[in-house]
Amino acid sequence: MDFKLCTLGTSAAGPVPGRWASGQVLQTARTGFLLDCSEGLQVALQQNGFGWSSIDVILISHLHGDHIYGLPGLLTSWELNQRTAPLTLVGPAGLKDFLQSVFQHSYTQVSYPIEWIVVDPLASPVLVYETPLVTVTTLPLRHRIPTVGYLIREKERPRTMRAAAIAAYKIPFSQIPGIKLGADFTTSTGTRIPNEALTADPPPVRAFAYCSDTAPNPPLVPLLAGVDLLFHEATFLHELAGQAEISGHSTARQAGEVAAAAHVGQLIIGHFSSRYGDLSVVLHEAQLVFPNTALAAEGRIFAVPYQR
Amino acid sequence: MDFKLCTLGTSAAGPVPGRWASGQVLQTARTGFLLDCSEGLQVALQQNGFGWSSIDVILISHLHGDHIYGLPGLLTSWELNQRTAPLTLVGPAGLKDFLQSVFQHSYTQVSYPIEWIVVDPLASPVLVYETPLVTVTTLPLRHRIPTVGYLIREKERPRTMRAAAIAAYKIPFSQIPGIKLGADFTTSTGTRIPNEALTADPPPVRAFAYCSDTAPNPPLVPLLAGVDLLFHEATFLHELAGQAEISGHSTARQAGEVAAAAHVGQLIIGHFSSRYGDLSVVLHEAQLVFPNTALAAEGRIFAVPYQR
Repeated sequence: MDFKLCTLGTSAAGPVPGRWASGQVLQTARTGFLLDCSEGLQVALQQNGFGWSSIDVILISHLHGDHIYGLPGLLTSWELNQRTAPLTLVGPAGLKDFLQSVFQHSYTQVSYPIEWIVVDPLASPVLVYETPLVTVTTLPLRHRIPTVGYLIREKERPRTMRAAAIAAYKIPFSQIPGIKLGADFTTSTGTRIPNEALTADPPPVRAFAYCSDTAPNPPLVPLLAGVDLLFHEATFLHELAGQAEISGHSTARQAGEVAAAAHVGQLIIGHFSSRYGDLSVVLHEAQLVFPNTALAAEGRIFAVPYQR
Repeated sequence: MDFKLCTLGTSAAGPVPGRWASGQVLQTARTGFLLDCSEGLQVALQQNGFGWSSIDVILISHLHGDHIYGLPGLLTSWELNQRTAPLTLVGPAGLKDFLQSVFQHSYTQVSYPIEWIVVDPLASPVLVYETPLVTVTTLPLRHRIPTVGYLIREKERPRTMRAAAIAAYKIPFSQIPGIKLGADFTTSTGTRIPNEALTADPPPVRAFAYCSDTAPNPPLVPLLAGVDLLFHEATFLHELAGQAEISGHSTARQAGEVAAAAHVGQLIIGHFSSRYGDLSVVLHEAQLVFPNTALAAEGRIFAVPYQR
C-alpha cells in the first residue's frame, strides 16, 4: 500500500527561483496529506501530478507566512475547479481566523466542506486525527511561535491469510475475517488447526515524522522511536549554530543527531537557507552523524518500503 | 528615460505551471511601479532581475485573490532582505485591513515605511499619486467587485536647449533653466535671441494604461486617448462573450475594440483563461480588430519609445 513522501518545497523563509518554500505530500493508502502550504505550492502540486482531489487533509505546523501563505490560493483554486470532496484542516489556533479573514477581504467563498481541527502545541503529543488505516499525532517542536510536528503512523493490520492453508483445509470465506483476527479453525472432521498455521504476521506498520521548524528539542527524540522516514529541518550549517538557536532552527548536524538518537530508518533534510546554493555540503554535514540521510528536493519522492 | 513594461504573470484566476497570475512592472525614470501582485510573484520578480528595492509603488486594481495573494509574501521577503526604502501601496478600501490581518495572524512585522493610499473605484478617474516626473490616475473598470485601472503618464518636461546655441551666443549656465522654461536671451551686445532659436520641443510625454479585470466599459475609452501602451485583459475568446460578461471580463475581440476606439499606440493583452494553451488564436482575434497587438508573456518587456 502507498506510503510515500513527495517533498515539494525546500526553501526556508520564502520561495526563490527553483525552490518553493515549505510543503510536502505524504500519500497513504486512502488518504493524501499535505504538510504545510507555502506561497505558490498549488503550482508545485500541479507540476507533480497532484490533482484537485488528491489532498484530503492539510496539516499545518505553525502560522509563519512561509508555511501558510499558499493556503488561500490553493483552497480558492480547488473551488474554481469544482472540488466537492471534504477537506480536513489541522493546525494551531488562529489558522481558521487567518483563512476566513483572507477570504472575507478577497470576496472568496469555498463551498466544499471543511472540518477544522485545532491543535495545542503545548499539549503535544496528542492524537489529533485518524482514519481506519492511519493515526496522526502531534510532536512537540521548539520554535519562535507555537509550532507542532506531525507523526503519521499506519495502524496495525489484521494477520494475513496463508493462501495454501485456505486450499488445504477448505476454509470457507465467511470464516476468514475471524481467522485474520486470530481465531483457530476446526475442519469438517473436527481437527483444530491453530491460527499460526493459517496466518502470517501482517506487514509491520510504517511511520513518517515531519519536524519543521524547530531547534533541537530533547523531548522530541523518544517520540520518534520506530519512525521509518523522518523529515527534519536543517536550515543552517553548524558553523551558524548560534543563529539557528536564536531563530528557532536546526543545523544539518543537529538534524543528523536527532535521527541518530531516535534510530529512525532514513532522514530527509530540508528547509534550507537560500544562502546555500550547493546543498552537498549541507548533506555531508548531516551524513557525518547519520549516514542514511538524503536531501529533500522539489518533486523528489521517498517511498517507505515494508521492512520485511 | 526608462518607460517600459515587464509583464510577469498572464494567467487568469490563479497560477498554473508556466504562467503566474496577475502582476507586471512599469519602470519609469525614477519610480518602479508594480501593478497587482498574485501568489508567487516575488519569484517572478527575482527571476526577472527586479531586486528588493526596485519597486517603489504598488498599484492594486481590486481585492480578488489572484491580484493580491502574493503581497504578504513579497512584503515579508523585502523585510527579511533588509529593505529600508519606503513603499507606497495604492488600492481599494480593504487592502490595508487585508494585509494587517494576514501579518497579525502570521506573527509578521515590516519595519520599512508604508504609505497607504485608498482609491475609490466609483470616483474614477482621480489623480491618486504623483512624482515630479509622472502622474497616476485611476480608470473606471467594470468587474464583479470594486475595481480600478491605472493610467501612468509622464509629466510635460521643460524645452531642451540646443547645444549649438549655447556656444554661439555664449549663454551662461545660470540662464539655462529660465530659457528651458521659455525665456529669450539677450547677448552681451544687446541682441535679443528669441527662445525658438535657443530651444527645441521636449520629447512628447508617454502614457501607459493598465486595465484588468473588466468587462467592456464605454466611459473608459475617452480616458485612454493618447495612451502609447495599453494593457487590457482578454480572458476569453469571443465565442465565450456571454461567460465574459457574466464574470466581468473581456474577450480578445473586445480588448481590440477598446484599443481601436481609443487610438492607442500598442495593445498588450493578458489575463488568459488557462483553457487556452496555444495563445496564437487569442492574439489573432484581437489583431483582426487592432493589428498592433501583442501577447503578454512571463518576463516579456515592452519599451515605449519616444514618438519623435
